[in-house]
Order: sequence, then structure tokens, then C-alpha cells
Amino acid sequence: MRPLTLLLFLGLIPAVASAVALPRFPGPHARPRRGVGAAGAVRGYEYETRYFRQRLDHFSFREEEEGEGFFEQRYLVGRAGGWAGAGGPIFFYCGNEGDIAWFAANSGLVWEAAPRFAALVVFAEHRYYGESMPFGSKEKAYNNSKSLAYLTAEQAIADYAVLLTNLKRNLSSDGSPVVLFGGSYGGMLAAWMRLKYPHISVGAVASSAPILQFEDIVPSTIFYDLVSNDFKRESLSCFQTIKESWKALEDQGNGQDGLLKLSKTFHLCQTLKTTGELSDWLSSAYSYLAMVDYPIASEFLMPLPANPIKEVCRNIDNQLDGTSNLERIYAGVNIYYNYTGTVDCFDLNDDPHGMGGWDWQACTEMVMPMSYSEDMSMFPAYKFDYSSYGEDCINSFGVRPRPQWITTEFGGHNISLVLERFGSNIIFFNGLLDPWSGGG
Amino acid sequence: MRPLTLLLFLGLIPAVASAVALPRFPGPHARPRRGVGAAGAVRGYEYETRYFRQRLDHFSFREEEEGEGFFEQRYLVGRAGGWAGAGGPIFFYCGNEGDIAWFAANSGLVWEAAPRFAALVVFAEHRYYGESMPFGSKEKAYNNSKSLAYLTAEQAIADYAVLLTNLKRNLSSDGSPVVLFGGSYGGMLAAWMRLKYPHISVGAVASSAPILQFEDIVPSTIFYDLVSNDFKRESLSCFQTIKESWKALEDQGNGQDGLLKLSKTFHLCQTLKTTGELSDWLSSAYSYLAMVDYPIASEFLMPLPANPIKEVCRNIDNQLDGTSNLERIYAGVNIYYNYTGTVDCFDLNDDPHGMGGWDWQACTEMVMPMSYSEDMSMFPAYKFDYSSYGEDCINSFGVRPRPQWITTEFGGHNISLVLERFGSNIIFFNGLLDPWSGGG
Repeated sequence: MRPLTLLLFLGLIPAVASAVALPRFPGPHARPRRGVGAAGAVRGYEYETRYFRQRLDHFSFREEEEGEGFFEQRYLVGRAGGWAGAGGPIFFYCGNEGDIAWFAANSGLVWEAAPRFAALVVFAEHRYYGESMPFGSKEKAYNNSKSLAYLTAEQAIADYAVLLTNLKRNLSSDGSPVVLFGGSYGGMLAAWMRLKYPHISVGAVASSAPILQFEDIVPSTIFYDLVSNDFKRESLSCFQTIKESWKALEDQGNGQDGLLKLSKTFHLCQTLKTTGELSDWLSSAYSYLAMVDYPIASEFLMPLPANPIKEVCRNIDNQLDGTSNLERIYAGVNIYYNYTGTVDCFDLNDDPHGMGGWDWQACTEMVMPMSYSEDMSMFPAYKFDYSSYGEDCINSFGVRPRPQWITTEFGGHNISLVLERFGSNIIFFNGLLDPWSGGG
Repeated sequence: MRPLTLLLFLGLIPAVASAVALPRFPGPHARPRRGVGAAGAVRGYEYETRYFRQRLDHFSFREEEEGEGFFEQRYLVGRAGGWAGAGGPIFFYCGNEGDIAWFAANSGLVWEAAPRFAALVVFAEHRYYGESMPFGSKEKAYNNSKSLAYLTAEQAIADYAVLLTNLKRNLSSDGSPVVLFGGSYGGMLAAWMRLKYPHISVGAVASSAPILQFEDIVPSTIFYDLVSNDFKRESLSCFQTIKESWKALEDQGNGQDGLLKLSKTFHLCQTLKTTGELSDWLSSAYSYLAMVDYPIASEFLMPLPANPIKEVCRNIDNQLDGTSNLERIYAGVNIYYNYTGTVDCFDLNDDPHGMGGWDWQACTEMVMPMSYSEDMSMFPAYKFDYSSYGEDCINSFGVRPRPQWITTEFGGHNISLVLERFGSNIIFFNGLLDPWSGGG
């Protein structure tokens, strides 16, 4: 079992079709679950939804393009209780791999800070996510590698640069101080945009942005070691139960009617085709739990109690003697996938926030090597391998990843030197237990 | 008559087919005139010619590309009298709109400075120029807007970043200090590369780089005002003769057998089709003379005497009484186009250094507005007009220029602030009389 291509920040990870075929093309576009509409409000602050005509390919020129050469980028604008007006500060949120309304609804920091600075708040959606679809529909945009070709970080940052330049001009605010915000992948974009477009912003606030999780800059095991450690810290027996579950799962899956039995134990809506589907689903629950292991109840990824890992481990540990390993695991992940108790059965292919495009990005430039270490991790040992990763990407998308491109384009090796001298006013912050802290 | 799309640095400008159709597709690829071969030497310093496989489109991903997705970039490597070895300094010349061997032969500064720093010297050719042709041949590369699409500054800078990263790795010189060099358009590339890829170099030396000659950052008349001033400084009557010549030229051209007569007066190989061809040819001579008005004899653009403008004006002024205005003009530009006296007739479509691609670049992102002022200039008054410029580009290449893109991508407005804080170690220098000093 290999580590998942994790969505950096977000939601239910789309489970992969088999253990080897890593990325997949996503299903129909899911709507944001909390129903933020065209004109919306977050914490009482209203915003407007607007659209900006963006060029699909900023870096090449072709015969005068109409229609397919452009797309409508969605962005949200709010005054958050009073903007200073022309020339006043602008807070610009660099959208990441999902629906921007959903990020806006979950970015309390931005909304809370804006009134204190009398800042205008802008949330810009990332191309190919949410409503910002090239080629008229998600189906067409995600059709093949030719239509997906322009889903890259560089193009997305250029979108933000063009949108911001245009906004400032239209608001007679060319001199406005702009602070960029972003979390995780969006945090990487905010930091990179500050580096690449120093004339457009005065600073960036990047949370949990693993800009060093490329090539061999940090150990490839660090993320899952930190995830595992979050569980071990709560309960050694919980950690141990999880560590042993992978073999139990394989054994049961390989037995008579194994996949059917597993599907029943875990209350899945459809019968499993491979054990890999299930282990990916479990693995992603653990990873996202570690990312949102807040000391207060939250609803960011899923409705969760305070200290959710403690709750998961309590469920795993506190079962009657004789409860099987896999039944304990099921009781544990129920905290993550079904805390409200309203789910009848689980659909492993659910993608509520519409983020399947990340698989493409992971198969092109966002190659973040991930391994499971033998001793430190609660996952079965796995060493990242560029060549089999590349083969999977060719099988899935027909593209070969460029693992060295991001560090060539944005740096990474000896980044501290570069950030010191050029990346002024970039604030990186991570939660103490955030597993991404290993890569940023 | 409108100002020419000047090649920034270089050679005989390809005259345009008519006064309105600004850019043109270039003719067959011309070889560098001074015969610098595959293994060459400059000022006694030898260099090797090498080729590096570059990706045609760095910023998008398509299904695994072979063949046409790549091209061979030529670069020259010289030790210039001893490189310090692994980890030692690297001088990297960012090629511009022409044959790199020709630039290498004319970049004395780089070769003279390298031995003092024990630096390795690398001259990298710009894509679509010289031998660095995508699609296998210049004919195919320049076929239409689809094949020319990837001829942009951003792609060229990314070429340099990838090549440098790879070179450093192969030479075990990841930590080598790299200084970028470039002149004019290449100087803009060097400065922009220092800004955009601060992790790859420690500084840039950019000569005559008009990075502010975009939008309305500097007055659009500044370049030709400076050119004109260089002539006025030498001789007011010379300036006046030139200023009056444009009308004389039009008048003669419109008369009986006018174009034939003009062609004879100026010793052209072919009969003119429009007067515009001739005035462009004259205008470019004046402009390039101003760019290379060195106090010593030089052979950079053309073989020229010391203080060539002084010589041109002497020829214009010191003719027998009764010599017509146009005959004086002919005597003057003969200094530029025929100082060696070996030319029998002039071919206005000559492009000795193979640089026709600049017309494409000027019609896409390198939109540098140029006007002729009424009073200060010796050219007939002309006000740059975006909309007619754009129409010409659509007619010639089928593309619409993006005049605001360069300042969005690289900055420009309030550049001093940005350079102060981020562009550390970028040295801009200009000749005192260099007309490009107005734009950088």
C-alpha cells in the first residue's frame, strides 16, 4: 500500500480506484455543502460574487482566441464592515484546490482581521475548481490531458496577478497595500506569488504551506511520521491497533467472500473491488484527522468533536474484549466519517467539495514524495519511487510528472537564504501538531 | 510614417513590407556573418558549443510529449583562461533576439571579466533564434501563430533557469555564485530573471535594458527624442536636413516615376514598392547609429568609424552647394550601411543576423509604445496608437497584442521601490548617449 496523493487541505479525499492507479478523473461536480449562495455572508460579513474573464494560457500566444481561450474566474468581494476606500488595504485570498465559497466560509482569520485594517476582502477561486471552469463545464475541462493542460500553479498565480492588477486599477487603488492569504496549497501559492510578483503585494500570510515537501528537501516520511505520532501521543495501543490493521484487512480481503465481508464490516454502500480502496479510505481519515486535530469542535472538513484523535482512539481502545481489530478500526473512523450519526452507508467515491483536480496537479508538477517509514509510522512500510509513480501518472492521465520543476521555478533548496533576502513579509505558520509542519 | 518596431540591439532591421503592415514573417535563416563556428574562440578564449533538450512549453502540461514537445537549445561554454572548478563562479549570458555565437563574439565585457573571477562563461541562445529552433527548422517554427506561440520572454527565462539548474547539478556546482549578463532585450531578461528566480543567481548586469519602455511609464517619445538629440548635438543643420527629408522623400515618391528615381538615388537593388520601405530603412540607420555611437571604431552592428554620428553628419553637411536634400541623406547613411565601400546595391530586406522573430515578440507581449514628438524629434510627428498597432498585428500574425501583460508579470510602475527591496544586485548601465537610457 502506498501513501495517498493527499489533498493538501481538504475534505473527503476521492478514494482511488485501485491500489496502483493513483489518480483518477473526478466524478460530477459536487456543490459546496454549506450552501453559500451567489451573494453570501460569512460571520455576518456580506460579500458579492463576481466573475472576471481570464486568459486560459498566460504564457503563450496563439491566434486571437475567443471562447475557449478564456474562462470566467469567480471571485468574492466583501467589505467586512467597512473598507477604507480607494487606496485602502486589500486582503486577497489565493484560492486552492476547491470551491472558493467553501474556503471563504472557513477562513475566519481573514474576515476577523479585515475590519481592524479597514481592508477590502477578496477571495479568488482557483482555475478548474468550483465554478471557475474553462471550456464551459467541468466535464469538458477535465476531459483529457489536453483540456487539463492549463491547470498549474504558475497559471493560477498569473490569474491572481492579472485579477488583482485589474481590480486595483478599477478601484483607483493602484497604490493599495495588498496582503495575500492562503492555506496549505493556497498558502504555497500566496508565498510563491509574493516571491514572483513582489510589485503586486506587500506581504503574504501562508498557513500550513508545505513548500519544502519536494524532491529530497525534507525526508519523504516526515508527513506520515507526524500523523502517526499524533495517534501514538494519544494512545500507544490505538497506534498499535492501527498498525496491525493493514495486515488484518489484507487477510480478510483475500479470504472467502473477503471483499463482501469487509464491505459489511465498514458499512459501505457498494461492495469493494479491492482492499486498496478501503485502506486508502482509512488512511485519508487518519491524515485529515491529524490536520484538523483542534482542541475545539470544528466543522471544517467534517463535523468533528474537540480533540478528534483522542475520540477516535477512545473508540478504538474501549471496545469489549474479543472485538476484532477491524471492528475497532471501524468504530474509530466512525468519529471522522459519521460523527453526526446520520450516515447509513459510506460511499468511498464521494467528493463533496469538488476537488478531483488535485490528482492531475500531483501527476504533473506538485510531486510531493511521500513514504511510510518502517518504525515510526503506523502505516505499512512504503518507499516512494519516482519511476512507478510516473508510470501510474502515464496510465491515468497520459502525462509524465516533472518532479524537479517546482524547485527550479520557485526554489526550495536553501530556501531560507532566498526567503531571508527576497521573501520579505511572508509569514508562515502551522499548528503545533499539524503534520504539514514537517514540509514548511 | 510610424516608428519602427526596432530590434532592441541589433543589426539590420528587416524593413517592413509596407508602411502599415508593421511586422512581417522573416525570410530564410541568415547565418552569422563573422563565421563563428561550432567550436569557436573570442579574443583568444575558446569555447565549446553544446545543446540542451528543452521543453517547448514550461507552463502547461500535455500528454507525454516527444519530438515536437522539445527542442535543442544551443549554448556555448568557455573557461576563459581557467575556471575555479566545482563551486566556482559562473557568468551566464542571457541570449537575446539573434544568433548566440554573434553575441558571444561581441560581448567583450564578459570575456574580459571572467578570468579575473576565474568564472565559467556560458552563453545561452534564446529559443527561436540562431540554431535553437523548435519544430526542427526555422521555416516550421515561424510557420504561423500556432508554431510561434512559445516565443515569449517567460518561456525563454524558464529555459535559462532549467539549463542553469541542470548545468550546476552536472558540474557539482549547486552552490556556485551565478552572475547573469545581458544587453538590451537580453538585459531585460537578465534583470527579470534575477527578480523572478532569486534562488538561481546572485546578481545581474543588464546593459541598455529598457524595462520601463512599456505602457505609459516613460513618455513614448523618449527614445526617438534621444536619437534625434544625438544628431542635433553634432550638427543643427544635419538634424534639420534629416527633419526635412521625410517630406522630400514623400514628394519625390509621389511624382512621376518617383519610386524608381528614389531607388536609384539610394542605390537599391530592387525598385521600391512604397516610400515607407525607404523611410523605415533610413530611420533604422539613425536609431542604430545612436545605439552604437561609440568613440572608437567598432564592428558590432556594422563596421563603423569612431563617433559614427559625427561622420554621418559631416557627410550630410559637407556636400557641394545645390546637392539635393535626398542626395545628402544618401551620403550620410552610406556611413552606416556601407562604410567599407564594398556594397554595390542595398537590399532592404536583408536580415544578416536572423532576427525576424522580434516582430512576433513586438506583436504579442513586447509592446513598447514609440512616438515621434513634433518639436524635439527629427522624425515626422507620430503618436503611438494601440488600436491601429493591434490591427496591424492581427493582419500580420493573427494575434492581438497584450500591452499590459509585461507590467503585470514583471512590474514596471513604481519599479524603483521593487528593485530597491527585491532586485538586489542588479546593475543597470547605459551609455551616456544611448537612446535606450530613456527606458531603463
